[in-house]
Amino acid sequence: MFKELASAAESLKTLLERCGPVKRSETIHLAGALGRVLSLDVGSPVNLPGFNRAAMDGFAVRAKDTRGASPLAPVYLTIDETAGEGRCVPVRTGMAAPPGSDAVLMKEDTLLRGRKVEATAEVHPYRNLARVGEDVALGETILREGHRLRPPDIALLASLGLTNAQVYERPKVAIIPTGGELVPPFIEAKLKPGQARETNGIMCELYAEIWGGSPRKIPLIEDDPDLIKEAIAQNLDADLILISGGTSVGEEDYAPPILTEMGELLVHGVRITPAKPTALGMIDEKPVICLPGYPVAALAALYIFARPLITMMAHRTDLPRVVVAKLDGKIVSRPGYLTFARVSLKDGVATPIMTSGAGILSSVARAEGYVLVPEEVEGREKGEMVEVNLIE
Amino acid sequence: MFKELASAAESLKTLLERCGPVKRSETIHLAGALGRVLSLDVGSPVNLPGFNRAAMDGFAVRAKDTRGASPLAPVYLTIDETAGEGRCVPVRTGMAAPPGSDAVLMKEDTLLRGRKVEATAEVHPYRNLARVGEDVALGETILREGHRLRPPDIALLASLGLTNAQVYERPKVAIIPTGGELVPPFIEAKLKPGQARETNGIMCELYAEIWGGSPRKIPLIEDDPDLIKEAIAQNLDADLILISGGTSVGEEDYAPPILTEMGELLVHGVRITPAKPTALGMIDEKPVICLPGYPVAALAALYIFARPLITMMAHRTDLPRVVVAKLDGKIVSRPGYLTFARVSLKDGVATPIMTSGAGILSSVARAEGYVLVPEEVEGREKGEMVEVNLIE
Repeated sequence: MFKELASAAESLKTLLERCGPVKRSETIHLAGALGRVLSLDVGSPVNLPGFNRAAMDGFAVRAKDTRGASPLAPVYLTIDETAGEGRCVPVRTGMAAPPGSDAVLMKEDTLLRGRKVEATAEVHPYRNLARVGEDVALGETILREGHRLRPPDIALLASLGLTNAQVYERPKVAIIPTGGELVPPFIEAKLKPGQARETNGIMCELYAEIWGGSPRKIPLIEDDPDLIKEAIAQNLDADLILISGGTSVGEEDYAPPILTEMGELLVHGVRITPAKPTALGMIDEKPVICLPGYPVAALAALYIFARPLITMMAHRTDLPRVVVAKLDGKIVSRPGYLTFARVSLKDGVATPIMTSGAGILSSVARAEGYVLVPEEVEGREKGEMVEVNLIE
Repeated sequence: MFKELASAAESLKTLLERCGPVKRSETIHLAGALGRVLSLDVGSPVNLPGFNRAAMDGFAVRAKDTRGASPLAPVYLTIDETAGEGRCVPVRTGMAAPPGSDAVLMKEDTLLRGRKVEATAEVHPYRNLARVGEDVALGETILREGHRLRPPDIALLASLGLTNAQVYERPKVAIIPTGGELVPPFIEAKLKPGQARETNGIMCELYAEIWGGSPRKIPLIEDDPDLIKEAIAQNLDADLILISGGTSVGEEDYAPPILTEMGELLVHGVRITPAKPTALGMIDEKPVICLPGYPVAALAALYIFARPLITMMAHRTDLPRVVVAKLDGKIVSRPGYLTFARVSLKDGVATPIMTSGAGILSSVARAEGYVLVPEEVEGREKGEMVEVNLIE
């Protein structure tokens, strides 16, 4: 049994304090930069527009030539190649304003009289005209270090003539699936009694990717301390190691003693239901999370420990996907434990999914999210408003 | 000028009514199925567990052999290879329960006395033992048509021995960037006065992907009606066409007449600021959205029209990313128009980004989201709670 169970919040805090965001950066092409995080401020290499640009369809003019113009007292301008001194040039939105012009007279404020334009309104300097550098000035910081690149950001950088971006490397997440009773996934073999397919590693891999990491899953290894040690040693180039299985209250509780032997065991056993056997440690200053073998417990431990850790290392400050919903049933929690309660969600109503099993993911298939019931609270009542964390 | 401007809501409704979710499906490997949507219910091909499985560390027993056992009146069982008739078998969690056993006596309820086990508690049949098919029964529907595959769903399917999934094809989104004054992105060339880089197509491509579509962007074409018509004709195998540029109030307003000529122009000009020139149509029963050329207007039109359309076609029913925040400044909107107002967001507070320009994305770089101010409302006051749509 676990002698002293740690609290979930304290355990996470201990782990996060020992780790930091990845500092290494790399240069990548903008076309593949979606979701990546800038490692440097980006200053504009150009003025945008790079020329005085007409912001309306009409006629480029020297503003002072239109002074006093009105429908009753129009001013006449001659259409020409350049503007100034009673001359004007037809322009369309987006075109470069011709030399000599400092404003655009809107088409609606003109009447065409042969080669002459009758201006029926006056314009002030720089009216309907975007000056050089008005949108973005040369050297101006347009996106800051730490900014996650979304489609409009990539379009903005490309519009400045940039091709690459300097971004943080994604944290390397090594995933070590263990379990002598397991067989690898996606293999046609029929299972023998006592066997199961290793699928927690798949969850780890997909979530590491979703949360901003770069996953590397090694082939399934047996519950053999030497093999687990070897796998850890070979993956210490990663920024984070997830060991799936190998931590429980049973005899084959290999992983936690290995953390002690190779580095430091920070936590073994946490007051979380259903993720009690989770172990956390540091080896060579790299965080190691030992996930429970039961799939739902592994999912809970991933959300409670791996998500904050990976997103922090990956500089991902996106808002968590939390929605507030009204409970239409009671959530029974385990007093003294942080409870990971699965709920389905529809039209702002959260329905608890009644199940005791942590052994199977079929209850998660119906769950759109989970509610975390704090240790000091005894469940949640029907009708309460709760925060639902969406399962990504 | 636009003669009759349509309302945004009506325009969207008109468009969505003419379209439907993609019905084609394909078989893909589970390893690449993240985010894809099932096109068929999935029934389990196996019982899970496929054997009676110990749910605790302890001894597999025949329940009736423990009847009446207590610390004061223990029952003695002999350790053996099979259970039944006073015999028991040591088991660990997850192991197959041996023949003859119908329950597991927890280790904590036993004392080891040489080859004998002293049972200090009684167990009922199937206590601490998961029966064949208890988690998932053979043939049971585990995930339904329309379900979007998340990491635990993929792990669940893999745990049942499945390798592939039958999913809906992603809607094919053809993207046609137009504009004679534009040069393609990611090219080192210095711009001439009047030129700009084509980057709305990049936004379309990235968003089509994020929203569940399969984008195909063709090379930039000039503002030539024949070239645009040819490009449309060549892309009618797509489920949806996005034309970037080519719709405005100017002379080169090519796209809308082409919709009329090749099919049906549903809407040209919408009461949205800043996406007024948006045009919507149908050609060969395929929806066509003509996006304004100004980048912010294009972004607004993408969110207001393309997002609902693509997500609907892609069977993506995920919840929209909306957060409620308190405004710490006034949003000025254009009466009678749906206003796409950019806001930055921090700690539940939304700050309007003051800018009039739709021509440049630098205001979007600072915006975490946008607030849609309805046509009938005149702005939003400081201190109001507003729904902020996050910019993905």
